[in-house]
Order: sequence, then C-alpha cells, then structure tokens
Amino acid sequence: MAPVPDFEQMWRDLAPVGRSAGSGGYFRQPFTSAEREATAWFLEQCAARGLDVQRDRFGNLVAWWRPDGVAPAAAGRGVLVGSHLDSVLDGGAYDGPLGVVSSLAALDVLRDRGFAPTRPIGVGVFAEEEGSRFGLACLGSRLATGATTWDRARVLTDRDGVSLEDAVAGVQTGEADLLAEVGCFVELHVEQGRDLVDRDAAVGVASAIWPHGRYRFDFTGEANHAGTTRMEDRRDPMLTYAMTVLAANKQARLSGQRATFGRVDVRPNGTNAVPSAVTAWLDARAETAEHLDAMLADVERLAQERAGRDGTGLVVTAESVSGPVHFDAGLAARIAGPGSWPVIPTMAGHDAGVLSAAGVPTAMLFVRNPTGVSHSPDEHAETADCLAGVEALADTLERLA
Amino acid sequence: MAPVPDFEQMWRDLAPVGRSAGSGGYFRQPFTSAEREATAWFLEQCAARGLDVQRDRFGNLVAWWRPDGVAPAAAGRGVLVGSHLDSVLDGGAYDGPLGVVSSLAALDVLRDRGFAPTRPIGVGVFAEEEGSRFGLACLGSRLATGATTWDRARVLTDRDGVSLEDAVAGVQTGEADLLAEVGCFVELHVEQGRDLVDRDAAVGVASAIWPHGRYRFDFTGEANHAGTTRMEDRRDPMLTYAMTVLAANKQARLSGQRATFGRVDVRPNGTNAVPSAVTAWLDARAETAEHLDAMLADVERLAQERAGRDGTGLVVTAESVSGPVHFDAGLAARIAGPGSWPVIPTMAGHDAGVLSAAGVPTAMLFVRNPTGVSHSPDEHAETADCLAGVEALADTLERLA
Repeated sequence: MAPVPDFEQMWRDLAPVGRSAGSGGYFRQPFTSAEREATAWFLEQCAARGLDVQRDRFGNLVAWWRPDGVAPAAAGRGVLVGSHLDSVLDGGAYDGPLGVVSSLAALDVLRDRGFAPTRPIGVGVFAEEEGSRFGLACLGSRLATGATTWDRARVLTDRDGVSLEDAVAGVQTGEADLLAEVGCFVELHVEQGRDLVDRDAAVGVASAIWPHGRYRFDFTGEANHAGTTRMEDRRDPMLTYAMTVLAANKQARLSGQRATFGRVDVRPNGTNAVPSAVTAWLDARAETAEHLDAMLADVERLAQERAGRDGTGLVVTAESVSGPVHFDAGLAARIAGPGSWPVIPTMAGHDAGVLSAAGVPTAMLFVRNPTGVSHSPDEHAETADCLAGVEALADTLERLA
Repeated sequence: MAPVPDFEQMWRDLAPVGRSAGSGGYFRQPFTSAEREATAWFLEQCAARGLDVQRDRFGNLVAWWRPDGVAPAAAGRGVLVGSHLDSVLDGGAYDGPLGVVSSLAALDVLRDRGFAPTRPIGVGVFAEEEGSRFGLACLGSRLATGATTWDRARVLTDRDGVSLEDAVAGVQTGEADLLAEVGCFVELHVEQGRDLVDRDAAVGVASAIWPHGRYRFDFTGEANHAGTTRMEDRRDPMLTYAMTVLAANKQARLSGQRATFGRVDVRPNGTNAVPSAVTAWLDARAETAEHLDAMLADVERLAQERAGRDGTGLVVTAESVSGPVHFDAGLAARIAGPGSWPVIPTMAGHDAGVLSAAGVPTAMLFVRNPTGVSHSPDEHAETADCLAGVEALADTLERLA
C-alpha cells in the first residue's frame, strides 16, 4: 500500500475546510458544502488505507479495517473509534475532527508496529453531533442507536426551513446498520475544560458525563413607555431576568457546578420600551442528578422571589434533561491503567454518551487543551499532546482488538 | 352646516381602524392602509366642518378653520392644534389620536359657544411621530421644520426595504409650507405617566421635555462551552450586562430619573454557549442634562468595575442625545393660570418638542391616564377626562385665537 499522510499532514490538509477568513472559526454544518468537503477528504483517506466504507441512511458512516485473516466480525465483535466532522457555528478545529484524524493515524501506528488485530476496527463519523443545524445534538448517533426515531427527526428544519429529510437526500447514503458489528466504542476528543492542565497530563480517560438540563425561563411583565413610566410603576421582566442570570452564576460557583444563560429573546426588544416579556434559556450541568435538581430549585426560588418584588411573572419549563452517563468502568480501567492516565468526568454531551446509553461498552480519551477554550475559534491543542493522543488510542486498540 | 359627530361618536368611529383582533392594540404605521384609513376618516371630518385642508410633500397636513371675516392669516398669525394618527407597533388608542379628535371637538365647542376667532385655527396631523416604520421619531415635524432634511430622510427604509420616498409617493401630498401661517402650537396628548393621578387633576400643562439619551453598550467576552468551562475560567459578557441592568435601574430609582434596558442582542445566542458578545441599549432620561450625564457616568462606572471583575470588555457609545425642551413659559402660564391646571414636565418626545426647538411658541396639554400605561393596548383615559381635555383645549383657543 502507498505511504499515507501522517497526523500532522492530515491536520494541515483538513485545516482550511470550512474555515472563516474573518474569524478563523469553522462553519461545518452538516450536509453543507464545507462538511461534505471534510467528508470527501475523509473518504480519500479511507481509500488510501484500503478501508471498507459503510453508510447508513442517516448520513453516518464507518470505515472498517479488516486486515487479512480477520473475518467480517460477528455481530458485536468489532471495535469502533472515531468522532464527528461537523462544527458549531464559528467553532474550533479540534472538537470532532481530532477524534477522526487521530483514529486514522492510530491505524497507521498499529500497522507500523506490525500489530495483527483479531477483530475489525472501524473509524466512525457521526452526523450533526453539535446540533448546530437541526437543533438536536448527537443527531446521527441518536438515529443510529434508535434513541431518536427517523419519523421524529426527518421533519426537523434548519434556519432556512430545509428539512433533515431533504438535507440527507442530497448526500450519499446507504442501508447499513452501522452498529451491528460494534462491540465497543472509544471516542477521542479534545478536552473542553482544563482538568488535564491541572493534572499535568497530556491524555485522560472519561469516567462519566454529567447530567445536563436545558430550562426555558419565561419572564412576563408589562409593556410600557421607557421615558414616562416611573421606575416604581414598572413591571419590567428584564430586571427579573438580570437578577436570575447573576443568581444562577453564583449558585453554580458556590456548588462547583455549571450554569449559563447564553440565549435570550426580548419582546418587543425596542430601545424606548419597557419589555413585555423576556424568554431565556438556562443550561445547567451538575455532578449528579440530585445536584442538578438542587441547583435549579435554588435558581428558580431566587428568581421567583425577585419576580415577586418586580411585579413580574415567571414560568420555568424543562426543555430537556439528560441523566448522567457512566462509561464502562472496566473498560476505562483497562484503558487508563497501563498509561496511568487520569480518569475525569466531562460536562459535555458526546456521541459516546449516546452509544453508552444504548448499551454499547464505551470509553472516551481526552487530549489536553491548554486554555480549556472550546466551541470557539481559539480552541487549541498542542501537536505533541495530539500525537500523545494518537499513541494512547493505538495502545488502547492493541488492548481491545 | 350639517351637525357633526361629537367627541364620543368620533372616538367610536375611529376605534376599529388598525386595531388588532388579537391583542386589541393598534398597528397604524405611517403610509399603510390602516393609517391611511385613519387619515381618510380625518379628512371626512374636516369636510363636514368646512375646513381648508393643506398638505406638504412629506405627508403632513393641516386643516384650517377660517370663519367668515377672518382673512387668511399673515405669516405667523395662525394658531395650530393637533397631534398625530400613527401608532407604535401594538400601541394604544390614545397616543396621538386623542389630540386630533380633541382638536376637532374643540372647534365644535367654540362654534357652539359662538366664539369668533380673530385668527385662523388649524388642526395638524404630523406623519410618523412614533418612528415605528422608518426609525426616526417625529419624522413629519422634523421634515416640516427642517430639523431633518428630505435628502437625509428619503432614503430611510422600513423593515421590508421600502424607502420613505417610495412610501410617501403612494399617498396624496401637496406643496404647502404648513408652518408658514403658524404663530403658536398647542398639542393635547394623553399623559404617559401618573403625575396627574397624583395631583388629582384631569388636565395638566407641560413645562418641558426631559433630556433624553440613547447609549449603546457593547460588552465583549470569550465564546466558550457552557458545560465544560469552569465558572472561574469564563469571561461571560452576559454577567456584566445583567449587573449593568440592575445598576441602571437602581441609579434611576435613587435619583428620580429614568433608565431602561429594553433591547439586547446576544452573540451567538445559543443555549449551550457562553456568549462572545452582548450589545444592549440604555434609554436614559433625566430632569436636566447634568442629571443625565451624571446618571450615565454612574452606570458606566459601575459597569466598568464589574467588567474588570468578569474579565470582559465594555465600550459605551452615545447614539443620540437630545437636550431639554423648555416650552414657552408665558404661553404655559397663560394656559394654566385660569384653570389652575398643574404644570408638569414630560419624559416623552413629541412633535411639540420639535416645533418648540424650531422656535415656534409651543405648549402641551395632558389628559389624565389612570394607570400611566402607554405604548400598550392597555393605554386608557376616562371619557370624562377626555371631555375635560376638549373643554381645556377650547378654553385655550379662546385665549389664543
């Protein structure tokens, strides 16, 4: 087989795809030209390595390495690695692609080592992991596992009104059941916090994904004139919202959890009008479901108290609440032990969490992120750490395959 | 002349025009069918009263009452009353139309009293007072006085990209210089606060319009993942914004002024993202220019201190600052004295402020608003108070004309 590009060359080749000249961030929304270009690049890499590409009807794909002498795996015998190639709007280079590129590079390491796997190894690419186009995170893996049904998903629309069904119809798909051969899944991902910086480690292993809730806060007040209405006569929902933002931040800091108000819609949103309504979304994550519930209860209590003083109304609606994901402890120990890699929780959702919830023994490897910044053009990992990640993934595959 | 409808009949006839069946609020944007229907109704009323309608090329009009024996006024001899017929989006019934209907009714009262004016009396209707379509408040009176030039205004566009020039081309206009005959202007308006409630008076006279500033606050931070980024590692501009909202409210309450954050834009405005930027607009109004400057300085200082703690940036830009309007004190005293009506300031902009700034001796009459609510479907005035306003306006015209 011809020589294949190494990690650094692959990284350079993929770097310009879908990158904004302005911000330097990535816009690789699923089934758009940028994400298709990234996928085409991946398929070239698979062809160069003689991998057997299989597609399902949702836009997910798995490229299998089946060395001579390894029969197609019996159901549940293959080892899946991989991640995703799509990005959030104006995202970073590493979230997703690092796992895909590292998986290809790990196969090359195994070949160089002369390793002879006894099971097939697949490199998976899941569609719409970020939910940046159709609003549902981990959409590809949810469809592949059946956690979300096609009937429910196909009618989802993007900002331009294009349905998922129509978007998927524009790309090459297949009929494979991609997970039929899969016995376990290992996803390598850039860390999105700084635990590995604190632990002075290039690589870590995930123990769990924190519970995660998204809650809509509907604050209602009374539209009024911003000039003539005395301060004491107002029922201004912006005040209640503002206090709730600060309260959520304080509760999360005090309890070591996470709480964010990153999205807000104001009506009528006019400079000279006291708003009639403010709708905002709380993203909350906590170590346990009990911590999550307690934090939400504290924030809501403080917000309701303030609403009482402001003369405003507040209704809180849970839009989605995910319980904790506990990755396979035996698998994590088996992976982490030899390398003495720290085992740490993550607060972000991943395809690995979806597969784990579906009963697939699953593990995650993290690569150190010096600033912890993610979902941003500034997201970064040092090349030496990325190469350590490739070695760690290759070591893991040696133990599993 | 045939009998003309009285105040209450006119009010009932105008009530359905441009009213939303859903909210009960009014959508009478300038040069739209609803506002044209209101104007057509006004022109019928003028015809029924034998008034001489004059139009300028901007969509403003004045209907002159020139009783037998009153020669067309020499320049600067006529007395102008009136207001506007357009509304904010989803506005109330009274803001604007009350002044127009009361002006027509006041002419009827003068006729019933057998009053013989020595000067012509005009009922004016100014276009786009609210700025709800083309974004510039008091647009008609600004154009009529030359405070805004046609060259600058004609290219303004509405939300659908229609220019003011094209919108005005769709309605009947004329070539009159509407203010040439005007010696003084009296605008009757529903009060937009509750000063008259506190003073137990149905009618009041304006002393001044408070200085008014609109300031853009650009808060900048660092986009990041809402789950994985530790609270202490964030640079979240939403926090700085939230604290600034509360600080502005507190400063205004403490100093008896007005401060409102009614409009905010967040980037990227995603539930699972710490925002990179929050832009918000402060609407501030104060008794004097010095109070306005001091309040802004206090809010900005507190916001900058918080930005320092949050690791965020803040730039404040004054988008528009209007100095105080002092209505003609002699005119106000002449109007208020006999009726012992309270003389009160207002915090809202009006065509009367534009004419006053252009050197026209100007006064305003306010009619009590039981709740103070304005720019809202709930805006209201009691019929008895409206009729007291008509009498007050008739009394005023007797003294001036």
